[in-house]
Amino acid sequence: MIPKDKHLHGIFAPLTTPFVDEEIAPDHLAENISHYNRFDLSGYVLLGSTGEAVYLDDDESVILVKAARDSIPSEKKLIVGTARESTRGTIRFTNRMARLGADAALIRSPGYFKSRLTPDALALYYERIADESNIPVIVYNIPVHTGYSLTTETVLRLAVHPNIIGLKDSSGNLGFVGEVLNEIPNNFAVLLGAASILLPGLMMGVSGAIITLSDVAPEHCLRLLRLFHDQMWEEARRLQLDLIPLNKAIIQTIGVAAVKYALDLTGFYGGPCRSPLPPLNKQEEDHMRRILEKLQLIEA
Amino acid sequence: MIPKDKHLHGIFAPLTTPFVDEEIAPDHLAENISHYNRFDLSGYVLLGSTGEAVYLDDDESVILVKAARDSIPSEKKLIVGTARESTRGTIRFTNRMARLGADAALIRSPGYFKSRLTPDALALYYERIADESNIPVIVYNIPVHTGYSLTTETVLRLAVHPNIIGLKDSSGNLGFVGEVLNEIPNNFAVLLGAASILLPGLMMGVSGAIITLSDVAPEHCLRLLRLFHDQMWEEARRLQLDLIPLNKAIIQTIGVAAVKYALDLTGFYGGPCRSPLPPLNKQEEDHMRRILEKLQLIEA
Amino acid sequence: MIPKDKHLHGIFAPLTTPFVDEEIAPDHLAENISHYNRFDLSGYVLLGSTGEAVYLDDDESVILVKAARDSIPSEKKLIVGTARESTRGTIRFTNRMARLGADAALIRSPGYFKSRLTPDALALYYERIADESNIPVIVYNIPVHTGYSLTTETVLRLAVHPNIIGLKDSSGNLGFVGEVLNEIPNNFAVLLGAASILLPGLMMGVSGAIITLSDVAPEHCLRLLRLFHDQMWEEARRLQLDLIPLNKAIIQTIGVAAVKYALDLTGFYGGPCRSPLPPLNKQEEDHMRRILEKLQLIEA
Amino acid sequence: MIPKDKHLHGIFAPLTTPFVDEEIAPDHLAENISHYNRFDLSGYVLLGSTGEAVYLDDDESVILVKAARDSIPSEKKLIVGTARESTRGTIRFTNRMARLGADAALIRSPGYFKSRLTPDALALYYERIADESNIPVIVYNIPVHTGYSLTTETVLRLAVHPNIIGLKDSSGNLGFVGEVLNEIPNNFAVLLGAASILLPGLMMGVSGAIITLSDVAPEHCLRLLRLFHDQMWEEARRLQLDLIPLNKAIIQTIGVAAVKYALDLTGFYGGPCRSPLPPLNKQEEDHMRRILEKLQLIEA
Repeated sequence: MIPKDKHLHGIFAPLTTPFVDEEIAPDHLAENISHYNRFDLSGYVLLGSTGEAVYLDDDESVILVKAARDSIPSEKKLIVGTARESTRGTIRFTNRMARLGADAALIRSPGYFKSRLTPDALALYYERIADESNIPVIVYNIPVHTGYSLTTETVLRLAVHPNIIGLKDSSGNLGFVGEVLNEIPNNFAVLLGAASILLPGLMMGVSGAIITLSDVAPEHCLRLLRLFHDQMWEEARRLQLDLIPLNKAIIQTIGVAAVKYALDLTGFYGGPCRSPLPPLNKQEEDHMRRILEKLQLIEA
Repeated sequence: MIPKDKHLHGIFAPLTTPFVDEEIAPDHLAENISHYNRFDLSGYVLLGSTGEAVYLDDDESVILVKAARDSIPSEKKLIVGTARESTRGTIRFTNRMARLGADAALIRSPGYFKSRLTPDALALYYERIADESNIPVIVYNIPVHTGYSLTTETVLRLAVHPNIIGLKDSSGNLGFVGEVLNEIPNNFAVLLGAASILLPGLMMGVSGAIITLSDVAPEHCLRLLRLFHDQMWEEARRLQLDLIPLNKAIIQTIGVAAVKYALDLTGFYGGPCRSPLPPLNKQEEDHMRRILEKLQLIEA
Repeated sequence: MIPKDKHLHGIFAPLTTPFVDEEIAPDHLAENISHYNRFDLSGYVLLGSTGEAVYLDDDESVILVKAARDSIPSEKKLIVGTARESTRGTIRFTNRMARLGADAALIRSPGYFKSRLTPDALALYYERIADESNIPVIVYNIPVHTGYSLTTETVLRLAVHPNIIGLKDSSGNLGFVGEVLNEIPNNFAVLLGAASILLPGLMMGVSGAIITLSDVAPEHCLRLLRLFHDQMWEEARRLQLDLIPLNKAIIQTIGVAAVKYALDLTGFYGGPCRSPLPPLNKQEEDHMRRILEKLQLIEA
Repeated sequence: MIPKDKHLHGIFAPLTTPFVDEEIAPDHLAENISHYNRFDLSGYVLLGSTGEAVYLDDDESVILVKAARDSIPSEKKLIVGTARESTRGTIRFTNRMARLGADAALIRSPGYFKSRLTPDALALYYERIADESNIPVIVYNIPVHTGYSLTTETVLRLAVHPNIIGLKDSSGNLGFVGEVLNEIPNNFAVLLGAASILLPGLMMGVSGAIITLSDVAPEHCLRLLRLFHDQMWEEARRLQLDLIPLNKAIIQTIGVAAVKYALDLTGFYGGPCRSPLPPLNKQEEDHMRRILEKLQLIEA
């Protein structure tokens, strides 16, 4: 559990879900985590988009979260993606994850009936969940998947709830992030979901980030954070720009399959995605290799 | 089961899921179906968007489909919405529904990772499912929920699969429907999902429709179909135009909650939607009453 | 001038603007029109999207409309696209075109500052123009270019203005067309802008169409209209479906350059588009030839 | 003229166009400029979106640019928006503005036939213009008006042209800006068009900004720039966040009419917008007053 007065800080890695022959492979997840534990990451997110959560059933989710919990030392946080489309479904799954030791729930706003989900309906959705959840809630704004953005007003209303501790924003819109930062109470954290703007986001006042880039390049992400704290602006700027091509490939152009491909090349277990996500073609593999070489994540 | 050489014809009603205190109420579902059985509908769709399927878990789905199967006479078809985001999840749930007696599976194209789902990936998704499904598959194109439209080429590729019997199109784009109708084999059915263009769609050559409007106004929908077959063009045109305001309210402006409100007023069980879907406000209730009065579905 | 109580009927061809070495070629325009005059088209639209109107300055527009007016017999209508973004600019240009003999003005709704153009602001725009225009006004809804659709309420408000005689709708959304047809006064015409749904649109009650398809296949379009009036449903349906691939190519896939390419192959003057519109590549030319052969517009 | 090896630096104000009774008022423009000349702005943009350029004809544009040129001291730059949809129209208008003394042309990418404007067609458009323009060209990416974003590849191709000196980006997408900054030659400037992310943009490496916010709050914008250069991070961050509500109102929520309303309250000439842009309602006026009071731009 994460008390509301203790901010979420630093870099959190949203982990991939390892599959072998389309079956979940919790042992590979545990191995990956023990590798990641060497880095100064603040914690992990299980069952996020990067984890192909929409392809997992509840029982698989339980097995994966158990395996993760056992592999994560107590000083690192375990955040779990628990969104279902219905309020009651989300509450039940959140509390199931709470019983397995999740420290907080990351909850994507519902999208299916979006034309009917007024700001008030969305706020009520989160408030009811936060009221009944046994772990703190992080609101998750991800327009590329839901088809709309939460409004500043909705976030500010939710920020005063005692069991809602933060916002993850993956809109890529720092203007929106700035509006939120301008008015939220001190005990409410804003985490960035877009690694291409990590440095600018830190500059604006976010307290940390949940970024897939840290799955592939954890040291680079952590170094960027340190450069920011040490006010090494020019080095920070240079590193931020250098990281953009890798981030673009794993988020925008190719997606999760590219993350897994990169993991396979860098000592982690990547493996295939579940169908219908296609594997990389030859051209995409070459593109990924060039990018990873340039960042010295693999040898040329 | 529906053999591929026997076309899907007529009007299918995509049923609502009755809830009492947010719990599913299969008895109310059975009652509703026995009311609907008086009409000359060709069958029913369970677990569609109108059925708030995204708010149901698998066990609830099983109970509802069992209750429905027991209430539906053999001459009417039971089609079940079985889409999951993953290929294997969809196959498993489809075959679970097959064992309960579903006649066909209506499968919405996956949307979550849409930027990676190339036409080829989408065709493979459906082909693999159709290969392993024990009941025939109907492809479902619904851009308002998935964020993209299937291409004509994808539909034509799927139309030759022996276990894919039809397409439901809810794009509202009759140009697309026409492109498909122009080239599909004779044993592939196109069903319309947009009641505002039912008459024009029939004119273009669709063989039937799965339309929420038939939940609330089954007699009107069936009369429109008869007028079309009897070539009573002016009456058909007049009725089509008269139905548009009701259809707009239950599909576009208010949604499923309006369907349920109308059911409650017309002798069916409607009841509340699951949270986070909000109920109608006073103004929306008045709007619905006026529309239903005008169509003589309720008394003024 | 077109009196409001005399409906706009039939097929209107929105003409291309001939260029030679990027200069306008009014003589080629006149030749094209004299060819088109052999067909039973109801009239022509100058300075529409198909006419690359956004690439023409005012003086060029004047020359082209003069040349057209001189070539059009009195029983055919000359409609001119006169939209500017500002109200006063549109009024001035409309009346300039009126002085040259335009029978009506086709006015696309403004798009540049669309987020500020409320339904009321849009209605006021058209009302003020219609008040001051010396020729009747046709409202033009074309979401693909403006980025939004007019609402039914706006159209109904405008339909009662004495100098607004009709709507051209290129949304492709027959549900919207149906809503409008359901409530407009008798003396207000709805013209379709989407040839792929011409037959369904006629079925719904539109009185005619302004369709680029009639530039390339005027006889086919007129035959479809006659088949509809003669209630030859199966032939009409077959012809409608046959026309969809050509229409898709000239509207959606390739655009104006494909129209001009087809004109060059069928005895009209097509010529190049103005830059930056690119010419067809080899593959697009082959595609166009195959389509035209299939419709017997050129020999195989 | 601005040589390519001398970067565009600092803050440029995109000026409003004063109207009196819907006629342009060049005297008010000259007055406004003489007020602005007191500030350390790097220059002005005439005939941009903020200048309601789409509502002006060519002759009005000439009068306004003449009036501006006479009022601007030589050390400040005069940039003029010269985009037309056609290549030749843009070249002609650009060179007309060059003859009036414009230092550079800001050219929005064409939008009308966007589905046909491939990256190659867009690059050719700019290259041909830059070849023939007598003043340097600044490429302008503004998806909210054009409906699409330029790609990084297109910008990088254009950046090596000797007569293309920079990019103005109003996408609000700092990830895109970062991609561009990562690879452009040293003599190519990137100017930000989104004031809500000015500080983050400077951090990423943009050399300046063209922001409507500087029309209303020039001192605040310039102070933010100084704080950045002086590495006063916390003050800079605080000021950036404070400016977001004003920027949101004048860009997103209300638009140009809000800029003019604020000018009228702060000693400039604002006046009305041209129709169809509606004036502020009472609620919007109150909102603007509160925002301006908070920033001490007007007295409470």
